[in-house]
Amino acid sequence: MTVDLVPAAVAVLETNWAGSHTLPATGLYPHQWSWDSSFIAIGLRHVSPRRAGQELDSLLSAQWLDGRLPQIVFDPHRDREYAPGASFWRSSHIPASPPRLETAGFVQPPNHAWAVWEVHQADAHESARRGLLERAYPRLVAWHGYLTQRRKTAGLDLPFIVHPWESGTDNSPLWDEGLQRVPGTPEARIDRVDLEHAAPTERPSDREYGRYFWLTERYRDHDCDDADTVYPFRFVDPMFAALLAVSERSLAAIAAEIGQDPEPHRREAQRIGTALESLWDPELGCYTAWDIIAEATVRKRTANGLVPLLLPGPHEDELLATLRSAAFLGSGALLPPSYDTTAADFDAQRYWRGPAWFNISWMLIRALQRVGRSDDSEILQSRLTRLAVEHDFPEYVQPWTGAPHGTRRFSWTAALALDTALAPPTASVP
Amino acid sequence: MTVDLVPAAVAVLETNWAGSHTLPATGLYPHQWSWDSSFIAIGLRHVSPRRAGQELDSLLSAQWLDGRLPQIVFDPHRDREYAPGASFWRSSHIPASPPRLETAGFVQPPNHAWAVWEVHQADAHESARRGLLERAYPRLVAWHGYLTQRRKTAGLDLPFIVHPWESGTDNSPLWDEGLQRVPGTPEARIDRVDLEHAAPTERPSDREYGRYFWLTERYRDHDCDDADTVYPFRFVDPMFAALLAVSERSLAAIAAEIGQDPEPHRREAQRIGTALESLWDPELGCYTAWDIIAEATVRKRTANGLVPLLLPGPHEDELLATLRSAAFLGSGALLPPSYDTTAADFDAQRYWRGPAWFNISWMLIRALQRVGRSDDSEILQSRLTRLAVEHDFPEYVQPWTGAPHGTRRFSWTAALALDTALAPPTASVP
Repeated sequence: MTVDLVPAAVAVLETNWAGSHTLPATGLYPHQWSWDSSFIAIGLRHVSPRRAGQELDSLLSAQWLDGRLPQIVFDPHRDREYAPGASFWRSSHIPASPPRLETAGFVQPPNHAWAVWEVHQADAHESARRGLLERAYPRLVAWHGYLTQRRKTAGLDLPFIVHPWESGTDNSPLWDEGLQRVPGTPEARIDRVDLEHAAPTERPSDREYGRYFWLTERYRDHDCDDADTVYPFRFVDPMFAALLAVSERSLAAIAAEIGQDPEPHRREAQRIGTALESLWDPELGCYTAWDIIAEATVRKRTANGLVPLLLPGPHEDELLATLRSAAFLGSGALLPPSYDTTAADFDAQRYWRGPAWFNISWMLIRALQRVGRSDDSEILQSRLTRLAVEHDFPEYVQPWTGAPHGTRRFSWTAALALDTALAPPTASVP
Repeated sequence: MTVDLVPAAVAVLETNWAGSHTLPATGLYPHQWSWDSSFIAIGLRHVSPRRAGQELDSLLSAQWLDGRLPQIVFDPHRDREYAPGASFWRSSHIPASPPRLETAGFVQPPNHAWAVWEVHQADAHESARRGLLERAYPRLVAWHGYLTQRRKTAGLDLPFIVHPWESGTDNSPLWDEGLQRVPGTPEARIDRVDLEHAAPTERPSDREYGRYFWLTERYRDHDCDDADTVYPFRFVDPMFAALLAVSERSLAAIAAEIGQDPEPHRREAQRIGTALESLWDPELGCYTAWDIIAEATVRKRTANGLVPLLLPGPHEDELLATLRSAAFLGSGALLPPSYDTTAADFDAQRYWRGPAWFNISWMLIRALQRVGRSDDSEILQSRLTRLAVEHDFPEYVQPWTGAPHGTRRFSWTAALALDTALAPPTASVP
């Protein structure tokens, strides 16, 4: 099994390599995506630590002057292949945007310091020769600074997101009520390029896309300024916050390695972990999202709410119980579904409303290793690699059958299958 | 006089602004040049501190992974307007090059930390709001690290240059003997795009250009690797080294401002100043260049050899005497000529073989202020602004008549005339 996986996964990453970064997939995603690149680098480091470093350097070099790492760095030659693209964002007109590049103004979950640390560890000599940590450290500090300062939620002190896309889990049921408040851009004005590559039943609906576009135009037209007080969509996502804390822990390790003070990063990780506790829902047995405008938690069980198991915390047993319950693996799912299988609006085929994703599974495997549940994690490791290679590295799968959905030869599926096969089975969380 | 200068100089900088950086001049120089951008930012800060910061951010964002700041950042849409351009360098094939950008592999004199510090001081609030110092500091440290580690001259401990272009004074007589050792690229293979914009008598000769190209091809074909031991051109330039020391002093000021330790930078500036003393020539009364391959000093009086007056040192009086001697201002020159007017091969019209340049004059004005010779500096200040505006901001001038040469509406001439008019007349050196 593993014998076949490595060359097949490497071939996917070769095909999707675009000179300085890896495309998430040929066709559907023709640019560089932010958190995709982190997951990709974590796999790539096993076959080319140098290229894994390049992948992250490429993203970090597109950092905005305010510290944000953009959701997408556009290839200007492929503007017509994805919407909203460079000509929609016209980021070079926005004062804080990086010189000479075209990017989206949104961000994605901050898994980057974690990825830098994993890449460094794969070949510390190569990393030192290229100065990876020294170069990345100040940029990662600026990135976290952007999130903690400009995206600070009053009273909760966790970073907020301004668009479902920023959660990485675009059409998760977590954002449904929030989207109801958003006026839609008329459908006629929206170019659903995505539907040339995937079936409508597997993608967000037209109505959802209209609202996505309205928010995007609004944010762009206010120069991506997070102080826009009447902007109608603001959420705290537990997965986003948990990844920031893991990345702060990674920054502590990086700082120690290059002779900087790790203590501020340890304290910051601790602070974020503590703040997350106000999103704990004892009845659901997982963390919830916080709707800032409605001033209410979103009481739904999602994979996002399980990902804080990456961090030490007071609810590890309850999170494990929820993961094993009928809402997730206890339903007979092969890999953790993205949404509570017992919910009325669970949909086993539609993007983030039910299907199982390889990055979620990979993070939960790492979390299970962290809490010493190697029995559980080994089962998931074996299923992850099998489903990845069996279906040519699908974007996501039907949780019970493992039937492939979305695009194929998806880069992070290949990369995380590689990491699952090649990292020590005990690999855990910084 | 000054009443007319400001709007005229601002108009030049407006015309040459290219969205994220300023072109040295429209026509002859269609890309971003490294040390030009520093001089330009120093003037631009008086009219737009924000744009002055953008100018430097633009250059710093093109930093190579090994720390070098490239001589030129190319506009890929204007490849046919300058040679050697992006398609000649094909830098994206070189492992250390920055992602997504096309640049030259050479560097230019390191005046950048000085410029960042001047821009910060123009509007410390705007600078802090945009995080200019925090963002620039690690990049400037990496840039100086590249020069001191990869360009280290054994025994002398000053950075070497690998091409006359790296000195910023392309056809200075300092490099003549060194160029004799360089095989030339056949003239037929060289595109003299520069001659479409300036007279052949004012530019380097075809023979010189053939050798420039040979060196450039060789450096490129070895992936811009400075460890190439049989490379035939390696010099230490006193102006380049002096600017590195001034920039280390600026880094000390920047470090103190952002809560980092300034001491290592002060020590480094001191070290460079001390190392420079081995290039002092008591008979010439100025600093000389060092020909690494021939293991010999280049015993010629040039403006390059006067620029160390920017630094505290044991030969200030002698440098002042040389500046006032018949070799330079004592010849009746309005501004300091680039080369010894008494030399047999002095040429009042040809680029760096005699003409007076506004950046050299500006640096020597700052140096005169530093040593308390405000009488001398005021005369030069007045002539600099007058000649700049009288001849529509020429690239350089005939030293006695002030007749304009090279291109007009030259950005650094406009910028440094602005600074001369608008900075406190006592402005000195960090």
